[in-house]
Amino acid sequence: MSKPEKTVLALDAHGGDQGLAVSVPGALAALESDQGLEIHLVGNEGELTSALEKVGSAARERLRIHPAATVLAVDASPADVLRRGRDSSLWKSFERVAAGQASACVSSGSTSAMMVSGVKLLGTLTGIQRPALMAYAPSLGGHTGLLDLGANLRVSARQLVQFAVMGSVTAAEADGRDNPRVGLLNVGHEDSKGHDVVREAHAILQDLPLNYVGFIEGHDIFGGTVDIAVCDGFSGNLVLKSSEGLARMFLQELRSAFNSNPASRLGGMMAAPSLRRMLARLDPAAHNGAPLLGLNGVAVKSHGGTDVAGLTRAILEAGREARRQVPRRIEASIHEYQLETSA
Amino acid sequence: MSKPEKTVLALDAHGGDQGLAVSVPGALAALESDQGLEIHLVGNEGELTSALEKVGSAARERLRIHPAATVLAVDASPADVLRRGRDSSLWKSFERVAAGQASACVSSGSTSAMMVSGVKLLGTLTGIQRPALMAYAPSLGGHTGLLDLGANLRVSARQLVQFAVMGSVTAAEADGRDNPRVGLLNVGHEDSKGHDVVREAHAILQDLPLNYVGFIEGHDIFGGTVDIAVCDGFSGNLVLKSSEGLARMFLQELRSAFNSNPASRLGGMMAAPSLRRMLARLDPAAHNGAPLLGLNGVAVKSHGGTDVAGLTRAILEAGREARRQVPRRIEASIHEYQLETSA
Repeated sequence: MSKPEKTVLALDAHGGDQGLAVSVPGALAALESDQGLEIHLVGNEGELTSALEKVGSAARERLRIHPAATVLAVDASPADVLRRGRDSSLWKSFERVAAGQASACVSSGSTSAMMVSGVKLLGTLTGIQRPALMAYAPSLGGHTGLLDLGANLRVSARQLVQFAVMGSVTAAEADGRDNPRVGLLNVGHEDSKGHDVVREAHAILQDLPLNYVGFIEGHDIFGGTVDIAVCDGFSGNLVLKSSEGLARMFLQELRSAFNSNPASRLGGMMAAPSLRRMLARLDPAAHNGAPLLGLNGVAVKSHGGTDVAGLTRAILEAGREARRQVPRRIEASIHEYQLETSA
Repeated sequence: MSKPEKTVLALDAHGGDQGLAVSVPGALAALESDQGLEIHLVGNEGELTSALEKVGSAARERLRIHPAATVLAVDASPADVLRRGRDSSLWKSFERVAAGQASACVSSGSTSAMMVSGVKLLGTLTGIQRPALMAYAPSLGGHTGLLDLGANLRVSARQLVQFAVMGSVTAAEADGRDNPRVGLLNVGHEDSKGHDVVREAHAILQDLPLNYVGFIEGHDIFGGTVDIAVCDGFSGNLVLKSSEGLARMFLQELRSAFNSNPASRLGGMMAAPSLRRMLARLDPAAHNGAPLLGLNGVAVKSHGGTDVAGLTRAILEAGREARRQVPRRIEASIHEYQLETSA
């Protein structure tokens, strides 16, 4: 029996706030968890070589170094990326995918740098104008994919429908959801609610062979009633960041409550194991890994401040999307449902 | 010395889920807290008379009954309100204000019923097309006024600027904020971010004598960095409802964590007083009372499921707005800054 072919991923080794200190152990953990993966670490050759020297894991064998001379600044503008970023670890990671040497890339770099590199090097799928960014938010009983998150600030009804299809395909293929429930975010559940764009998208979605549950409201994102929540990028970005802000405030208030007196402190210590389990479930790292959907190739954005566990999750997400050929399946569905938009 | 004139409020006694069981004690608590108020309870005369018979409080003297024959259904459409709602407690409450017999009204009825009654009976201020709804969200160190929340789904730059002015005036006059900090919600802090409408509003706001801090992001709502956060009604509605959903999920998870084993349960009991103080601060009831701004009169929406403390807060908010003549001051500012929009 011949050895099954490995799924090769390119990982931008310098993308996150902590560079190799997170990317090397994150890559190893992903390789240990998914034996079918091979990872190309893209970055400074000397630094990567010395970081890998100390590694004892057998997974080391499925790790290659691919040199990149520079690192993009966190605040590099799209113009900076195109003008001066072509030797960067982020750009070179996308280049591996464009050249067919990897089937997915992962970076903890900036969203806009990934967006411009992805569009330039991979291009968008036929009929898709601009990729959308989808993140997983924790929900009662699991998580919900929310898109778009800021790439498409103004959208047409057809684009909203494309987001629904892309989210549904990704949830089914890479997230193992059976017949994913898709909802369209609006200011109310009734058909008459909302502006013309969401109402038109709602009408189109009702005629597609998706598991479309109809209009949903903000609280449904966290209620566990849908697998995919769709909205324009402006609203999606505000919703995601406000949720992050609220979660941070909540944790801060919880911490001060436990620290406010000796009895509370002791109580907190007694409840610590249960609280820690709960916080781990709500921790953004547990849901890290936001695919750029609509590109002609798999690219997953990892949070800049992610830890090893978070990066591992993002890498595994990229591996699943690549193996299941999510971009091809999205393109096929968009074509089948005649949802192409022109630029 | 003559007795100072009382500020008269009309309270829709049947608006909330619990009717008189919340509205009567809520009204009494507000009267006890603010000696300058007088409240007209608008609703079923017989029920109100018998509910008030048992009241011993001296504040009872500042409570009047104003009869209304019917109660609006929670899901009454705007057309229902106009066609069949004119004898309802909600409509009659607005009528008191329109007739000059009360200087503000409060209801826990539906937003859309309040909106249509307000526009029909009070009208909008000169230069304002449609009122905006502002709610207070808890934040680190206090709360933040967020508007609009769904009344204006599509907005022009000038409308966003109007929201900023209305929020700033209300925070200064009714919330005692000195020179309120106003931010415009966007997908990033940089001037180049966002679509044309927010960028145009940003440019206008920079030239006004407001304490405008610039673009803010979703997490800033809860971070305590602004007093007023401005956005279109579609995004604002999603942000508010998703935050409510996340908070509910967090509380549910916290409860299960404490109940998961005996040690956690005991720990939770020991920390209970501190946790309760924290939850009280984050409780929506502590921030209940959402003014409809831009009407030619004060109207405050209270949450349908509010408790007595929440309704009391909403009534006190209405009292402050009426006393400080918030609508007049909004109109003066809109005129002074030449921000009128035509219908």
